[in-house]
Amino acid sequence: MLKKVLIANRGEIAVRIIRACAEMGIRSMAIYTEPDRYALHVKRADEAYSLGEDPLAGYLDPLRIVNLALETGCDAIHPGYGFLSENPEFARLCEQNNLVFVGPSSDVIHKMGDKTQARDSMRAAGVPITPGSDGNLSGIEEALTLAEQIGYPVMVKATSGGGGRGIRRCDTAEELTQQYPRVISEATKAFGSAEVFMEKCIVDPKHIEVQILADSHGNVVHLYERDCSIQRRNQKLIEIAPSPQLTPEQRLYIGGLAVKAAAAVNYENAGTVEFLLTGNEVYFMEMNTRVQVEHTITEQITGVDIVREQLRIASGLTLSYRQEDIAYRGYALQFRINAEDPKNDFLPSFGRISHYYAPGGPGVRVDTAIYTGYEIPPYYDSMCLKLVVWALTWEEVVARGERALDDMRLHGVKTTASYYRQILKHPDFQQPNFNTSFVPNHPELLNYSDKRHPSEIALALAAAIAAHAGW
Amino acid sequence: MLKKVLIANRGEIAVRIIRACAEMGIRSMAIYTEPDRYALHVKRADEAYSLGEDPLAGYLDPLRIVNLALETGCDAIHPGYGFLSENPEFARLCEQNNLVFVGPSSDVIHKMGDKTQARDSMRAAGVPITPGSDGNLSGIEEALTLAEQIGYPVMVKATSGGGGRGIRRCDTAEELTQQYPRVISEATKAFGSAEVFMEKCIVDPKHIEVQILADSHGNVVHLYERDCSIQRRNQKLIEIAPSPQLTPEQRLYIGGLAVKAAAAVNYENAGTVEFLLTGNEVYFMEMNTRVQVEHTITEQITGVDIVREQLRIASGLTLSYRQEDIAYRGYALQFRINAEDPKNDFLPSFGRISHYYAPGGPGVRVDTAIYTGYEIPPYYDSMCLKLVVWALTWEEVVARGERALDDMRLHGVKTTASYYRQILKHPDFQQPNFNTSFVPNHPELLNYSDKRHPSEIALALAAAIAAHAGW
Repeated sequence: MLKKVLIANRGEIAVRIIRACAEMGIRSMAIYTEPDRYALHVKRADEAYSLGEDPLAGYLDPLRIVNLALETGCDAIHPGYGFLSENPEFARLCEQNNLVFVGPSSDVIHKMGDKTQARDSMRAAGVPITPGSDGNLSGIEEALTLAEQIGYPVMVKATSGGGGRGIRRCDTAEELTQQYPRVISEATKAFGSAEVFMEKCIVDPKHIEVQILADSHGNVVHLYERDCSIQRRNQKLIEIAPSPQLTPEQRLYIGGLAVKAAAAVNYENAGTVEFLLTGNEVYFMEMNTRVQVEHTITEQITGVDIVREQLRIASGLTLSYRQEDIAYRGYALQFRINAEDPKNDFLPSFGRISHYYAPGGPGVRVDTAIYTGYEIPPYYDSMCLKLVVWALTWEEVVARGERALDDMRLHGVKTTASYYRQILKHPDFQQPNFNTSFVPNHPELLNYSDKRHPSEIALALAAAIAAHAGW
Repeated sequence: MLKKVLIANRGEIAVRIIRACAEMGIRSMAIYTEPDRYALHVKRADEAYSLGEDPLAGYLDPLRIVNLALETGCDAIHPGYGFLSENPEFARLCEQNNLVFVGPSSDVIHKMGDKTQARDSMRAAGVPITPGSDGNLSGIEEALTLAEQIGYPVMVKATSGGGGRGIRRCDTAEELTQQYPRVISEATKAFGSAEVFMEKCIVDPKHIEVQILADSHGNVVHLYERDCSIQRRNQKLIEIAPSPQLTPEQRLYIGGLAVKAAAAVNYENAGTVEFLLTGNEVYFMEMNTRVQVEHTITEQITGVDIVREQLRIASGLTLSYRQEDIAYRGYALQFRINAEDPKNDFLPSFGRISHYYAPGGPGVRVDTAIYTGYEIPPYYDSMCLKLVVWALTWEEVVARGERALDDMRLHGVKTTASYYRQILKHPDFQQPNFNTSFVPNHPELLNYSDKRHPSEIALALAAAIAAHAGW
C-alpha cells in the first residue's frame, strides 16, 4: 500500500483525496501557492508545502512537483482533476522517477487526450463513434467535402481540446468556412496544437457517461452511468446517477461499451467514458482519464469509494469488486454550487464568504473547501461547493434536492443555487425528459427572485431589534 | 396528506422533522420557549410560536400545545422523541381534538409504556421475555421469593420508567432488600407511580433493537436491527446498523419477533422493539413508541426515510414498502456528540460554540441544530450533534468514523468526540466483539490526549503571526 501521497491539486478535490488517505492510513501532503495559504486542503493535510507567490505556476509545474515529492519521501502523486491531471508529460515524469501517478499510464493519457487517436482506438474496438473525419483534417477543402458527405450540422473540434473548449458548431458551408480558422487559432492558443477534426453534430443529445475502474491485473468494471445533460456551454451544472432516462437494456449496453473501450486501451485506474445518446443511437464522445468532479453521485448509488479504489489500484492491488458485486440503488443528484451570477450571464462572483452553513440531514452529502470567512480567490475555477443528494426514488430525490438547496446558507457571493431550484421545479426535469438543450431552451428559468424568505427576514429583523434593545 | 404539522420538540429532531415536511410539501410549525429564541428549529420552520419564558414548561404542556395547534390550523402534531412523545395523555388529547398524533394510539402508548403490561402482551404473543414477575411486585417479600426462584442477579425496575432510569441491579438478597425501597422512591418521584417489577438480570448482553413501521391498514414491516451495546449507564453512545455481531439467521429471527410484537398490539406508525441478546437467547426488553435518536443509521442502510413514512402513515396512506422491498446495504455508525466532559465523569459542558465546522465528504451525514455562536442552553439534554457515517464494509466504516470525527471542528465546549475515537481504535470494537459491558470494562479509554494536532497548532500560530504582521 502507498505510504505518502502528494496531492497536486487544491480545493474540494484535494480535501476529498486527503479524506480517502486518512481513512486508508496513507499520509497526505498538500501543495499550495500563496493565495491558498489559508485554504482548507492546507489545513487538513498531514503536511503542506508552499510553491510560491504565483497563484497558478506552482500547481502547473510538473518538474517542481515531482522534485518536491521525491525530496519529501512521497511514493505517489494524485493529480485530482484539472491542472496536470491529464497532462501526459507529468505522468511520464512520475514514471521516470519511480513515483506512482494515481491514474493511467502516460501513453494512455496521451492516446485518449488526442481526440482523433481516441476515435481510431474506439473504431478499432467496435465502440460506435460519430460519423466524421478519419484523423485530423488537412484543411478547409477536406472539411467542406466531408461536411457535405456526413451532413450539416457538423462540429469542428481541437484534437487536443478538453473541458468543452475548442469546439465550434457549423450549420452551413459558410459557417464552416468562417469558423474553421477560428478553431485552429483557439486550439493553438489554448492547447498548443493546431490539429482539428470533424464530427457530425448530434442535435439535442443526452450526455451519458460511464464511470469505470480498471486495475493493473486486467480487471475492468463499470459503476453504471451518469446523466450530465443539464449543462450550459458544455459546463455541467447538475449531474444525475443513474440516468433516469435510460431503459435497463440501454444501461447494460452502455456500461458494456465503456468496459470494452477501457479494455481496448489497457486502461488502468478510474476513468470516465462519455457518450452522446440520441434516440436509440449511442456514440463515443471522449474518455476522461482522471477522477471527475461528479464521481460523488456514483459513490452514492453504488457505495463504492472511488478515490479509495484509485489509491488501491495505484498500490498494485486488485479491484475490491467484481462486476456482479456492484449494484446501484436509488438516485443521486449533484449540484455544482458555483460562485457565479446566473442573472448576469454567469459572471464569476469571487469574494469573501460572509456566512456558510452546510446543509445536512438525510441523504445529503457535501464536498467543499469553503468556510465562513473564506475568500474565494479569483485565480481558479468558480465552483465552491458540491451538494449531493440521494433518495430511493426519483420523485424523492428531486424534492430532497430542493430542500437541501433551501437548507444551505452561503452568503457573501452570488451562487447558482437559486437557479438550480428553478430547474428542479420544471416539469421536463421532473418528468424526466431533458437533453443538453434544456438549459439554452429555458432562459426563462433565470427569472427567479433573489429575495430571502419573508420569515427569514422577519427573524433577522427581530434578532437585530432584540440585540439593540438589550433584550 | 397532512397539510400543516406542529412539531412539539426542539433541537436536531425538530430540524429533522422540518426537513421531512419540506420535502413532502407539508407546512411546518415550530414551538419554542425563550432560551430557544435563536434555535435552528425556530429559524428553519415555516412558522414558529413562543410558549413563554420557562425553558421547559412550554414543551411539556399538552393542553397548551394542542390548543395552539387548533388555533393555528394544524392538522397534526409530531412529538419527536423525549418530552411528550410517549405521554399517552398527550396522544389522547390529540385524538379527542381530531388532531393527528404522529405516532401510535394513546392506548398502545399506555400499554407499551407500562412495562408489566408490555411483558404480558409479549408473553401472550409468543415473544420471549426475561424470567421475572408476572406483573408488578406486591412487596419485598414477593421480591425476595421470586429472586430466589429465578436466580440472582435480578433487576428491579420502575413499571412506568424509561430512558434507563428507575432501574437497580441486585446481586444478593441483602442488596435487594436495600435497593427495593429506593427504586420505589425513585419511581414515585420520576414517573409518578410506585409500581415496580422484577426481571432476571441478563449479564453482559448485547443490546439489539429492531426498527418497525406499521400503517393503519394492518401492514407491519421491520427495517432490520441496530446494535446499541456501546452505552454508558443505559445511555447509548455509538449505535450501529446492522449489528456486525449477528448471524443472518439471528437477524431474520429477531426481525420477525419485532414484527410479531408490533402486530400483537395493533401498533401503528414507527416504533422500536428492544431486545437483549446473550449467546443464542433473545429476550424482549421494551418497545419505544416513537421515532428514536438513532433512526438515522437505519435510514442509511435501508434508504428508507423513516420520518417521511411516519408522516405518510399519519396521513392514512399505506406503507411505501413491503418487507421484500426493504434491503440493507453496508454499515452505518452514529456518534452522539454530547457536550460533556468524558474525563470528568461525563459532566455536561454547556456554553457557547465558538467554532463549528461540519464534517463532510463520502458517507457522512450530520443531524444537528448547533451553529457557530450558538449557546447550548443548560436546560435540555447535552446531545448537540449526531454524526453518522456509512460504508460498504465494517472495516471501512470504522476508518470512516475516525476520519469524520477528526474532520469535525466543534470548539467552545467539551465533547465526547475524542472519547469515541478511542473506542473505534479498540480491538474488541474493531473485531467486532462487544456487549453492554464494553464501556464500563474499559475505563482506560478515557486516558486520551485532548491536545490538537501539532500541525493544526502550527498553522493557527502561523495564521495569528501573519495577521498581526499584516502579511
